[in-house]
Amino acid sequence: MMKIQLALDRLTINQAIALTNKVVDFVDVIEVGTSLIKEFGMGSVSELKQAFPTKQILADIKTIDNARYELELCYQAGADITTVMGSAHPLTIEQCIQFAQANNKDLMIDLLNLNAHQKEQLFANADDHLYFCEHISKDEQELGIPRKKTFSRRDDKLRRIAIAGGITIQTLPQYIQQQPNIIIVGSAITQADDPVEVAKELSKHIRGADHE
Amino acid sequence: MMKIQLALDRLTINQAIALTNKVVDFVDVIEVGTSLIKEFGMGSVSELKQAFPTKQILADIKTIDNARYELELCYQAGADITTVMGSAHPLTIEQCIQFAQANNKDLMIDLLNLNAHQKEQLFANADDHLYFCEHISKDEQELGIPRKKTFSRRDDKLRRIAIAGGITIQTLPQYIQQQPNIIIVGSAITQADDPVEVAKELSKHIRGADHE
Repeated sequence: MMKIQLALDRLTINQAIALTNKVVDFVDVIEVGTSLIKEFGMGSVSELKQAFPTKQILADIKTIDNARYELELCYQAGADITTVMGSAHPLTIEQCIQFAQANNKDLMIDLLNLNAHQKEQLFANADDHLYFCEHISKDEQELGIPRKKTFSRRDDKLRRIAIAGGITIQTLPQYIQQQPNIIIVGSAITQADDPVEVAKELSKHIRGADHE
Repeated sequence: MMKIQLALDRLTINQAIALTNKVVDFVDVIEVGTSLIKEFGMGSVSELKQAFPTKQILADIKTIDNARYELELCYQAGADITTVMGSAHPLTIEQCIQFAQANNKDLMIDLLNLNAHQKEQLFANADDHLYFCEHISKDEQELGIPRKKTFSRRDDKLRRIAIAGGITIQTLPQYIQQQPNIIIVGSAITQADDPVEVAKELSKHIRGADHE
């Protein structure tokens, strides 16, 4: 099943909860965005988990060092998944993988700004609890840098893939075609005039794609 | 003048303030560590700035995307310097440089886990308000990975350099020899039985080195 992850960024915690309340039926994973964590700390993760205890909560902590300490913070706050930068030292990534495994948690490796060779090395770690996130930065999106096609699901049945960065209803079909495991949507929902309508529409396409 | 930066990590905000109060005369820059920011949010930066308004406060925000938004958060909280990952997309680094400049702030580029070629490309940006931080991760330190000699000040008079990662009184002399602009010390002070004694000793060596 292809999942939808709602990325909550550039909001207060209360705004994030209010927004999520409206669209919660149409999303599978709730992402507490890096901007919420850096602005409000772990309270952002624990408040979202308390508000939506039955949903998977991803803490987009973007670990780049201090692996075990950061993961412990996230797990104590109720996170089900955390993120680590693919550009971190291999030891940091390895520690995240091991510590997530020991705690029965999933982990997402953020492939932001990595070249093909660096990605290949990371893919060697593929397992059922590890997601690789093909991610275009906000800074690139805002400057209108076009996304390059980065992978095709047909190449690789093993890896679990998430796609993130400026995905909208208009651009959704090309990502669905690539058959990722998770499609991450942020501002297309959070900044929409009618977030419910957008979330419903995205969900219809994404869940519909599973039955094709 | 070679400066000492006190890195505050793995502490509560109150512990960080209490510790800093004891050693504040022996340090030049107070670093609100990444772990404080991720655990407590921007409150960690604003409380440290309020407690030590005449000191330079570095927010170790480790920006890797969302440059302008994160820098605004830090500046509103009272930060004088912020950090950006050298592994971020070049656009993100460029935006940090420009936005720091527009706000009369200094910026530190964290060279964690970059190779020589990647560092060289970043050094092209060198100016008086830009620090390059030669940084060994906590995760490497804790696994006992030895530090490689990474630069010699004599090679390059222009670049402003900071050195970070597990520096102690014992290892200090080799770093002083390299003549960085900033020596960053964390656990050697914060975890010491007598933080004041250690800070005083480090300060004596570092400030003494300026008069050699």
